[in-house]
Amino acid sequence: MRSAAVKLAGAGALAAVLAAAVSRRRVVGRLVRHLVVKAAGAPNYTPLPPPKKVKVALCQLHVTADKEQNWQTARRAIQDAASRGAQLVVLPEMWNCPYSNDSFPVYAEELQAPGGALSPSLTVLSEAAAAARVTLVGGSIPERCGGRLYNTCCVFNSRGELLAKHRKVHLFDIDIPGKITFKESLTLSPGPGPTVVDTEAGRLGLGICYDIRFPELAQLYAERGCQVLVYPGAFNMTTGPVHWELLARARAVDNQLFVLTCSPARNPDSSYQAWGHSTAVGPFAEVLATTEAAPDIVLAELDYSQLAERRANMPLRGQKRHDLYRLLEKTAA
Amino acid sequence: MRSAAVKLAGAGALAAVLAAAVSRRRVVGRLVRHLVVKAAGAPNYTPLPPPKKVKVALCQLHVTADKEQNWQTARRAIQDAASRGAQLVVLPEMWNCPYSNDSFPVYAEELQAPGGALSPSLTVLSEAAAAARVTLVGGSIPERCGGRLYNTCCVFNSRGELLAKHRKVHLFDIDIPGKITFKESLTLSPGPGPTVVDTEAGRLGLGICYDIRFPELAQLYAERGCQVLVYPGAFNMTTGPVHWELLARARAVDNQLFVLTCSPARNPDSSYQAWGHSTAVGPFAEVLATTEAAPDIVLAELDYSQLAERRANMPLRGQKRHDLYRLLEKTAA
Repeated sequence: MRSAAVKLAGAGALAAVLAAAVSRRRVVGRLVRHLVVKAAGAPNYTPLPPPKKVKVALCQLHVTADKEQNWQTARRAIQDAASRGAQLVVLPEMWNCPYSNDSFPVYAEELQAPGGALSPSLTVLSEAAAAARVTLVGGSIPERCGGRLYNTCCVFNSRGELLAKHRKVHLFDIDIPGKITFKESLTLSPGPGPTVVDTEAGRLGLGICYDIRFPELAQLYAERGCQVLVYPGAFNMTTGPVHWELLARARAVDNQLFVLTCSPARNPDSSYQAWGHSTAVGPFAEVLATTEAAPDIVLAELDYSQLAERRANMPLRGQKRHDLYRLLEKTAA
Repeated sequence: MRSAAVKLAGAGALAAVLAAAVSRRRVVGRLVRHLVVKAAGAPNYTPLPPPKKVKVALCQLHVTADKEQNWQTARRAIQDAASRGAQLVVLPEMWNCPYSNDSFPVYAEELQAPGGALSPSLTVLSEAAAAARVTLVGGSIPERCGGRLYNTCCVFNSRGELLAKHRKVHLFDIDIPGKITFKESLTLSPGPGPTVVDTEAGRLGLGICYDIRFPELAQLYAERGCQVLVYPGAFNMTTGPVHWELLARARAVDNQLFVLTCSPARNPDSSYQAWGHSTAVGPFAEVLATTEAAPDIVLAELDYSQLAERRANMPLRGQKRHDLYRLLEKTAA
């Protein structure tokens, strides 16, 4: 029986010591069995084994400064995606909020009240997931918690129950003079670690935008058996054209799994011009479906039998030279 | 003063223990200082600091079953590259030999006689490098040593002196039914580990073909301060179109360094159809120069000031979450 919400982030240093002596995969296996920590408020939820094929929808939403309008846009897109057969629906990074450090504190929400009630934007997601009966990777919103802000992605099952949340682990701090300068760390705090979540649509590894630049995170997810990496993200007009698809395809081919990216549509009125181009990539690095910069819903079918097939064709994981190198994960409590 | 030939491969387990406790970079720094092992017969060679810009040539050679003809082809290409201004010249994988398990034992050479004399193919390379006054990454040839065969790349300085050799670390064993099946392990043995070499043209990290599929190797080279990763390689007609450029660009963007790939030209008479497309990639994943499948010499200029610039723009190395993961290297004696 697989665990519902596997969230090992920030769990410490035990694995670091163990892994120097014993097999990484065995260590991770043990951690997954023993350190299951459910997301706050997560239901007692055991998903059925995922179907062999999953239809996904990447909702490239038009995001504005009007939060209620953003809610309405998201509701409609989720319903539209479901009506077109999607079982797994993905929203973009910061779908309820303009992407700017000025906006993050203003649009931020405490995700759950002490009694467990969901915040307004999460209520929209929960209700829409339940109404459409889809697994929903709810992009990200600015989260307020304990005096800090995070860039946080929440995942819901098809009953609208919150399964897991991922706080962006690698903050977007870059400075390409004359092109793009942004420092998320001026307002946001980094998340505690990787997030793996088992859903009706498969085992997902979550990352947000800049997280995709770090191959180690994707490798950890592959070692934990993720079938799909999901990256809501808002690349820009400088790095988007050269790196967005490249990075998605690189994570897919190196780890032989599916990769989904989901961007906001480009909004000419926004201070931040998103690249768009939400894309689904297969485990041979093939682009399954993509789009340009306008609002769109990108549909693709993920055939999970391809994972075993690609890995049998080219058994990269077994061919790694663990006598020479090994990615060490630091997760245990 | 930088070391001439830094070759730490197969050096053991000390770093594995140390690295769990202390900074990876500091450990590697110490290893580089204390474990300098020169390639057999390597000269007492201290390269000058590399120039700020280096002109490179990727010689996409027409390789045949006639070894002496292959020597002549290589000689001419090296001279031609030099006459066009190249300071660093790269040859393809298995440039003296058809790419087949039947051929490897037949074309294999013991690289050096007990007295130090170079084998026939290496003599060609040494003399050509000296005559052309270039740093030469001599693709690879089948090497015979102690009853085993290796796929081995030798590097020469502009005086024709052998600086280092790299034995392919990850053997090419794949089976895509109806497309491409090859098992190098039927004839070849894997190399002992990473190879870093300081040359007049910069600090190089060496890989051969399938080695490029393993991001860990590239990451180790980046941590050791390599400016350029050089991959002689012969991808095929199935994986070449989808993965060859992708992998080169992925290694470049993740590690913010230059990547050079060099393939044999496609030879219709060969049992193995090489993809060609030798390519030079910059640290922003930009393709600096490339070609198609015919014999060619690809020229590009590497501006090393871009390494510092790209890393200042986007300081990925410092942004890694080493509290969550760390690539562990096992190198020390």
